[in-house]
Amino acid sequence: MTLDEKQAQLVGFWVDQGDEVVAPMAGEKKTSTRYEEATAHGIGHLTRVYGTRPVDPGERAAWLWSEQARLQRETRLGIPALVHEECLTGLAAWQAATYPTPLAWGASFDPALVERVGAAIGSSMRTLGIHQGLAPVLDVVRDPRWGRVDECIAEDPLVVGVIGTAYVRGMQSQGVHATLKHFVGYSASRAGRNHAPVHAGGREIEDVLLPPFEMAVREGGVRSVMNSYTDIDGIPVAADAHYLDDILRERWGFDGVVVSDYFAVDFLRSMHRIAADSSEAAALALTAGIDVELPSPDAYTTLAAQVRQGTLAEELLDRAVGRVLAQKEKLGLLDADFTAAPPTAVDLDSPAHRALARELAEESIVLLSNDGILPLVADPTRRIAVIGPNADSTEALMGCYSFVNHVLAHHPSTPAGIALPTVLEALRAELPDATVTHAVGCAAEGDDRSGIADAVATARAADLAVVVVGDRAGLFGRGTVGEGNDVDTLDLPGVQRELVEAIVETGTPVVLVAMTGRPYALDWALPPRATPGGASAGLGAVNSPAAARVSEEAPAARQPAAVLQTFFPGEEGAPALARLLTGRVDPSGRLPVSLPRSAGAQPYSYLHPVLGGRTDITSVDPTPVRPFGFGLGYTSFTRTAIEADATVVAGASFRVAVEVNNVGGRDGVDVVQLYAHDEVASVVRPVAQLIGFERIGLAAGESRRVTFDVPTERLAFTGRDGVRRVEPGRIRLWVGEACDHEEAVTTIEIVTAP
Amino acid sequence: MTLDEKQAQLVGFWVDQGDEVVAPMAGEKKTSTRYEEATAHGIGHLTRVYGTRPVDPGERAAWLWSEQARLQRETRLGIPALVHEECLTGLAAWQAATYPTPLAWGASFDPALVERVGAAIGSSMRTLGIHQGLAPVLDVVRDPRWGRVDECIAEDPLVVGVIGTAYVRGMQSQGVHATLKHFVGYSASRAGRNHAPVHAGGREIEDVLLPPFEMAVREGGVRSVMNSYTDIDGIPVAADAHYLDDILRERWGFDGVVVSDYFAVDFLRSMHRIAADSSEAAALALTAGIDVELPSPDAYTTLAAQVRQGTLAEELLDRAVGRVLAQKEKLGLLDADFTAAPPTAVDLDSPAHRALARELAEESIVLLSNDGILPLVADPTRRIAVIGPNADSTEALMGCYSFVNHVLAHHPSTPAGIALPTVLEALRAELPDATVTHAVGCAAEGDDRSGIADAVATARAADLAVVVVGDRAGLFGRGTVGEGNDVDTLDLPGVQRELVEAIVETGTPVVLVAMTGRPYALDWALPPRATPGGASAGLGAVNSPAAARVSEEAPAARQPAAVLQTFFPGEEGAPALARLLTGRVDPSGRLPVSLPRSAGAQPYSYLHPVLGGRTDITSVDPTPVRPFGFGLGYTSFTRTAIEADATVVAGASFRVAVEVNNVGGRDGVDVVQLYAHDEVASVVRPVAQLIGFERIGLAAGESRRVTFDVPTERLAFTGRDGVRRVEPGRIRLWVGEACDHEEAVTTIEIVTAP
Repeated sequence: MTLDEKQAQLVGFWVDQGDEVVAPMAGEKKTSTRYEEATAHGIGHLTRVYGTRPVDPGERAAWLWSEQARLQRETRLGIPALVHEECLTGLAAWQAATYPTPLAWGASFDPALVERVGAAIGSSMRTLGIHQGLAPVLDVVRDPRWGRVDECIAEDPLVVGVIGTAYVRGMQSQGVHATLKHFVGYSASRAGRNHAPVHAGGREIEDVLLPPFEMAVREGGVRSVMNSYTDIDGIPVAADAHYLDDILRERWGFDGVVVSDYFAVDFLRSMHRIAADSSEAAALALTAGIDVELPSPDAYTTLAAQVRQGTLAEELLDRAVGRVLAQKEKLGLLDADFTAAPPTAVDLDSPAHRALARELAEESIVLLSNDGILPLVADPTRRIAVIGPNADSTEALMGCYSFVNHVLAHHPSTPAGIALPTVLEALRAELPDATVTHAVGCAAEGDDRSGIADAVATARAADLAVVVVGDRAGLFGRGTVGEGNDVDTLDLPGVQRELVEAIVETGTPVVLVAMTGRPYALDWALPPRATPGGASAGLGAVNSPAAARVSEEAPAARQPAAVLQTFFPGEEGAPALARLLTGRVDPSGRLPVSLPRSAGAQPYSYLHPVLGGRTDITSVDPTPVRPFGFGLGYTSFTRTAIEADATVVAGASFRVAVEVNNVGGRDGVDVVQLYAHDEVASVVRPVAQLIGFERIGLAAGESRRVTFDVPTERLAFTGRDGVRRVEPGRIRLWVGEACDHEEAVTTIEIVTAP
Repeated sequence: MTLDEKQAQLVGFWVDQGDEVVAPMAGEKKTSTRYEEATAHGIGHLTRVYGTRPVDPGERAAWLWSEQARLQRETRLGIPALVHEECLTGLAAWQAATYPTPLAWGASFDPALVERVGAAIGSSMRTLGIHQGLAPVLDVVRDPRWGRVDECIAEDPLVVGVIGTAYVRGMQSQGVHATLKHFVGYSASRAGRNHAPVHAGGREIEDVLLPPFEMAVREGGVRSVMNSYTDIDGIPVAADAHYLDDILRERWGFDGVVVSDYFAVDFLRSMHRIAADSSEAAALALTAGIDVELPSPDAYTTLAAQVRQGTLAEELLDRAVGRVLAQKEKLGLLDADFTAAPPTAVDLDSPAHRALARELAEESIVLLSNDGILPLVADPTRRIAVIGPNADSTEALMGCYSFVNHVLAHHPSTPAGIALPTVLEALRAELPDATVTHAVGCAAEGDDRSGIADAVATARAADLAVVVVGDRAGLFGRGTVGEGNDVDTLDLPGVQRELVEAIVETGTPVVLVAMTGRPYALDWALPPRATPGGASAGLGAVNSPAAARVSEEAPAARQPAAVLQTFFPGEEGAPALARLLTGRVDPSGRLPVSLPRSAGAQPYSYLHPVLGGRTDITSVDPTPVRPFGFGLGYTSFTRTAIEADATVVAGASFRVAVEVNNVGGRDGVDVVQLYAHDEVASVVRPVAQLIGFERIGLAAGESRRVTFDVPTERLAFTGRDGVRRVEPGRIRLWVGEACDHEEAVTTIEIVTAP
């Protein structure tokens, strides 16, 4: 291969990038290179062939096949391009199924289902000749102010790792390579501001942020990884071989391809200012281990010249090219035949897709409070007012990486291309005999209160009001959450809280649905928790006066009768919600993130040590309004008779069994959550850490013994010497309704091998 | 020495610790050991002999002298105790002078004056037989939500280092040992919550938090250091030899004594949970390098027994004892004669003290805005309403470590013991011919609005209203700022903003004085800045659309005619403020911390890299309302004709000269601030960094050339290899009214030695 041919394999090309801002700084970053020129020596990737604007999939496939054939025919080496697309909530292309957002995957606590979703998405992609998907996001949530929280799975590394790895397995089972993003640290950006520096020590990175990536590499066999935009303690990850090479490849054995996040290479110059020009930026990134520059030839255009000038070792170019060619070989691209007929009449939103999307939506909705109003009693004379900015909105159902919100927002006259029943429509369908009325009340954003009076009147005339509030996902200033849409308050956007309070004040019972992309401070809408956590010795030893402070708070004003949290639930989210409200489906989602008290108390994570929580030493109580793992159903559960092995050798696995009892009057689903606390360790450890979970369905009155087989590695941490290991000592173990609820408690002693 | 005698030298004893909570968890931490028992083998320290309750200094000195004589006489070795006291804003004892809080030292930018203050405090202490003062606090401000921000000097390490070292020099010039607190990391606690974990990497610690300590050790020759309570990335500092030994002693050559913060040793067990019991905690702390446990024998009571049991090396005990004895020797304690008469009729608040306190207060008040109303024109017919919770409060003048707020709050019937004129009293004295009226309006805390109407009426009847709002310093739930009084909002406490807005709405011109212990979000009270910063290439390259967002904000409602920021200004603060309002003194304070926009945008520091500031990539604009270094006077200045050496060899010093011109009509004082930005570096560097400053007075119309001699070490940072060094490259240099104002700009090239 010539140097130019090598260089060409290390870049993507965004064929018809328009003026729409769908990537950071994209406006300033439009490539000036013409496509023909860029592909003269071949090309590494084609960028978002289907995902840049609304195109007919069949027509686009025909173009792609012919283009691949042209590359085979007209370039000297005849290597086709690798085609990548966004696919976080389904393939981000027109007419393709749109699934719930990753926070909803986390809320389902159901990796098997997410694996099926990943496979379904991968299958569509494979059909269209797409080889790589830029998902999943394995960033562990560290600050709800960040706009990209809706793209993340959870604030717990085990949940992120297990569910993210399931997605990888599903997608890769279809021959499409998954891409882990964003390796590593992105979610810990300062104050949740997008791309801001990560202030974190090596131990936090190792023990909290890296484990999901390690699991997806080692157990999921993922084929690609994308860098984080951020710097960590002053070193931009895109220029840091410590992560991209030492840990990823040497320690974990990753042998796939590292791609740059869009424009990240030249950001080393323009944003991080550790390179004087684009050539230096390119050399830094290539040396650190970024094999392919996306989305377009930008800084990597100088690589061949740098080798010719003798300022860059050709071995570095060869290392990256070797990986890209190996990937293309593995994908069968080197022997592909594009003269065969491309697919036609592709159905990217088949009934199978929709059934999966609904199943995941149903499992992911979290019931936060319920005074008994739910499930709704079937009553044909009932008058139901469906109110709020998200009640009759299609956009509100989807995250910022859905095609509708990511791309179609720039093409307002183009229909969504998929059926997107709204909550209003779904409730009308679900309750055909009820009288369902509607008022918007207010927009998701802005301070226009003019519609509130009408909404109040609508509510007054009804027996029940379902008020659907929340976010509108978008990018970079468009919307209330999503990439670039960070916040410094965690109040519901706009005047939505005022709308809810006005409806509640009517006296008509309210079912509040928060359809959001991040957890908001909903304390005002929620009654005190029935099962308060944090009262036991492990978590609450220093808490008593602070707890007293909380209980001294003035009694809440009138509140909604029930509150549900749904993270963007996707194309079947509204029917799923409707089925859940009527009780055809039991609510079974659990919070994958803490429900915060205020923006001013952030960052907060349930994985805090004693001094990271509520203490007598600080007047600020960061305790969430509802904790990680919390969620109600229409029945209730107890957890009893926990038993664990007495001891376990470090490095081995141990068993914990617990009795889960459906003590309510209905069938239901519990997510059994096993938590641990290392009582005395050589470094400061969190008060609670999830080490196992399992969704189980139990009939009314049924009990079942659930057994966890827990590798002690889940309790490993990085010691003072920088080595991650399992330390001997006593571990407190418990199962309860959430992380802070020590309902069934035992201990186990980790011992060193004899 | 016997083991018991050695152990005794390594602990303090708090002779009459009461029930008042003046230290974290103090209620649970009262020692049960009797004094006679604790001193049977001698004692290392006596804790707060004068500072625990209001005692007559002369009577207490008599007790102390007799007690020292008893220790000499009745213990086998006859070693007197080292007596330590708090002394942050002056000796924390009854009747002692109370100086402005450290944030005010920072605002003065006047190390020479702070050195004189340190000497005055040290002189009082020496007279009373006190040997060690637990000050200064060298924590660099990282988050204004933290309650202890008022104890810190600035958010810039150079200002903290230079001014803190000046205090050390002053105090130690009197033979009293200063103590650096809190080594290291405390101010970076998570979300500003007291004692919460520090999420920071080694580079941030090295380049931002350690430099002030290094300066005070190397250049100030400080004799003692106190540990930080917090953990850093999982390792509690109290158990970390990396900081307490490797860096402090090995790298910097410190040969003094490390004392524990109060109760910090046993916190390794109870809070950090890295020790199973107090003995383990003691061994961890001693091994890491904590020589003396304060305030009382707690965990260190087991050291002798551990040595006897063979579980602790006697060398570790000996190492600490040797340091303590060396300190006592250096203090002359080993040869002291306590049979001589103790001091009587000690004046701890002499006119010299008061003059110094006033000078520092005058230099520290920051004028934030002024539509021309200031200075107040002398007009005997004028009616001035002095309003607000801090207008006629003595407590509001002082920080949380002042004796009045720290201790006397528990003895409400005891008089302050020092003259504490309030703002109301001082204005009446300063303007004897004006009609001065008064209304409180509201309290500093709470939601009682009942006094606002009366305040509004008072303002309406006046020609001018001086509204004094702000904080009340206290500890652990008492007050609005101070130790343990962290916040998750940066709005003025209670209903004070409502009070100000109601007064402003009367149309009577308002001079607003924020007398606080932390910077609050005062955007609503401030007009757009006359000289907007951030517009130049160095800071603002990515800023334009965000800047447009700011200017799109709705025009402000009616606002105060002038706004002043005074950080607790001490016993002479009110007369100083009065003189400044009338123009007898020109305002010359500059913000030592950024004036924040909101709590939800924290943490923020002016020392941020490009991506830590305002960018197009995030919708949250963290830009302060007024930047670090900002402050107006009654005249105005320009900075011109900056010149720097063309090149400088790394390791050497370079010269920068700039013309400062008083272009206004009055004499005045400018704080000339020299900033730098490393344009391309091997790691991510801040957009601005203060590398030199100087206060100068200029007559109306006068110009003066100010020359800075800057060691290149000020631009050193920690490279990828962990070594801190000066890197070659181009440095942008500027002088302006604040950190973001590039008024006079030049560059210098750092080159490697030939």
